Amino acid sequence: MIDIFTTGGTIDKVYFDALSEFQIGPTTLSQILTDNGVHAAHRVTELLRKDSLDMDDADRQIIYDAVAASDAAHILITHGTDTMVQTGRLLSQISGKTIVMTGAMQPFRVRGSDAEFNVGFALAAVQTLPAGVYVAMNGMIFDPVRAEKDRAGSRFVVRD
Amino acid sequence: MIDIFTTGGTIDKVYFDALSEFQIGPTTLSQILTDNGVHAAHRVTELLRKDSLDMDDADRQIIYDAVAASDAAHILITHGTDTMVQTGRLLSQISGKTIVMTGAMQPFRVRGSDAEFNVGFALAAVQTLPAGVYVAMNGMIFDPVRAEKDRAGSRFVVRD
Amino acid sequence: MIDIFTTGGTIDKVYFDALSEFQIGPTTLSQILTDNGVHAAHRVTELLRKDSLDMDDADRQIIYDAVAASDAAHILITHGTDTMVQTGRLLSQISGKTIVMTGAMQPFRVRGSDAEFNVGFALAAVQTLPAGVYVAMNGMIFDPVRAEKDRAGSRFVVRD
Amino acid sequence: MIDIFTTGGTIDKVYFDALSEFQIGPTTLSQILTDNGVHAAHRVTELLRKDSLDMDDADRQIIYDAVAASDAAHILITHGTDTMVQTGRLLSQISGKTIVMTGAMQPFRVRGSDAEFNVGFALAAVQTLPAGVYVAMNGMIFDPVRAEKDRAGSRFVVRD
Repeated sequence: MIDIFTTGGTIDKVYFDALSEFQIGPTTLSQILTDNGVHAAHRVTELLRKDSLDMDDADRQIIYDAVAASDAAHILITHGTDTMVQTGRLLSQISGKTIVMTGAMQPFRVRGSDAEFNVGFALAAVQTLPAGVYVAMNGMIFDPVRAEKDRAGSRFVVRD
Repeated sequence: MIDIFTTGGTIDKVYFDALSEFQIGPTTLSQILTDNGVHAAHRVTELLRKDSLDMDDADRQIIYDAVAASDAAHILITHGTDTMVQTGRLLSQISGKTIVMTGAMQPFRVRGSDAEFNVGFALAAVQTLPAGVYVAMNGMIFDPVRAEKDRAGSRFVVRD
Repeated sequence: MIDIFTTGGTIDKVYFDALSEFQIGPTTLSQILTDNGVHAAHRVTELLRKDSLDMDDADRQIIYDAVAASDAAHILITHGTDTMVQTGRLLSQISGKTIVMTGAMQPFRVRGSDAEFNVGFALAAVQTLPAGVYVAMNGMIFDPVRAEKDRAGSRFVVRD
Repeated sequence: MIDIFTTGGTIDKVYFDALSEFQIGPTTLSQILTDNGVHAAHRVTELLRKDSLDMDDADRQIIYDAVAASDAAHILITHGTDTMVQTGRLLSQISGKTIVMTGAMQPFRVRGSDAEFNVGFALAAVQTLPAGVYVAMNGMIFDPVRAEKDRAGSRFVVRD
């Protein structure tokens, strides 16, 4: 069983015409998994609908508590990319679980989005990596302690 | 370095209006990796453009030889789904490499295709699994000796 | 009221994994109209599911009879592009109706398909043109008597 | 010759990851016309990149002046939907030209967008309607004097 927690972020942004703006909508994770014929046992829980720039300590505690309380050994978290590594560092205090974080640079709803690729990438990583916390982005697996987002380059890199 | 070999299959089918039919076109793998912002070191080589139902022993030998000759320890192969497990069983004779096979039930060019998800999934699997041969489909990792395609269900299953 | 008749053609081709081939599926016209928020009064009737290269005189008679029997003055027909002009010439015998034919060079299900654009184009043409038969393709309105498909160029042209 | 003027609006909104928000990007009109194999003679000019809620009298004057100065009898304008009818009413003072306005409820870049359908619809309308100003949305042709946007319904309607 893979426990999937969604917290918002770009991956779930939707354009609302009546508001003339994009906002985070209901999570698209279940649709991504269904559309792609995933048969691995999993359950999806929507924890938050936040842009990660707007997350505070209370939000991160909600994520921490959900992961800590899960009876699953494999945890996949979708999260805004801007503060993904901060949340990842907090989750490092949890032992005995493989925790993989991913997100997207473009919303799932946008043509050419990296959402499906990244969720596929993270879903393999969470089933194969040893216990620990990982950021799975750009086709690479990062240690959140050493990773950071390069906003100008729209990618994650290893910090110097 | 990840060595990616493409062999054709549904993932690379394209509609040619002048022929009024779909055929396997140039591989879309490089486009998938670029579109999804992949920064893992890799190289893509197109070995074949075959529907896997049309592959014969000579075709599988071409794949075998390319994998055996590669200096990379991580090998990703895109392949038609219908005979993916047969090729996988042949490749099992190669030791010391992590070989992951994937493909798609719907062409990359078709809306809602599982191609990007599956390539993402396979790209994580090939970086994280120990040496051996694996079929990475439906969000699951299969041993080709024990897997088979359920055509009616459009999915891979473990044989009884 | 706009009467929409579908006859098959590339626009409605779908990839069937279990058959490893593309075939004409149920018409996508209603989905195209719904997805694009069309509020013009219309009704969709599926007459045939044929590649237009496979249409014979009996098939064209079915289309002719349906158009002749319609009580609507505005008729939109989706049709394979290869013999669209032949069917159009037959329909020229029907007077008092605006009959617009369209189709697609790439199936609606394929990314980047011209299906939605062409149906939108034809839907305006059928509401605004005087009685007669027209081929609405490539952002242009053709007289079927003088038009032909340039297969190599994947477009319609006026014959010399 | 069809003169196409773009002014911004939802149709051209793009997600900028580095800003964590959607903004109006370079116009997508030329891409839409190329992707859909349009061979009607046209020229595309980007006049503005504005959300139509942010347009003021000076902006509308820019549009008015461009249309008035055009030597083409057929003018297509892409425009945000929220104040499309206001601009249309101003343009009604220009005689002797067929002026068709369209836009989209979802950005072209978003899957399932109505952008391509609407541009196709408008491109036929501008070639077939008599001189006048028209709003071409929802598969219907509206008189801007009598039309309004129903924001809650995400569609245009005729005012009571």
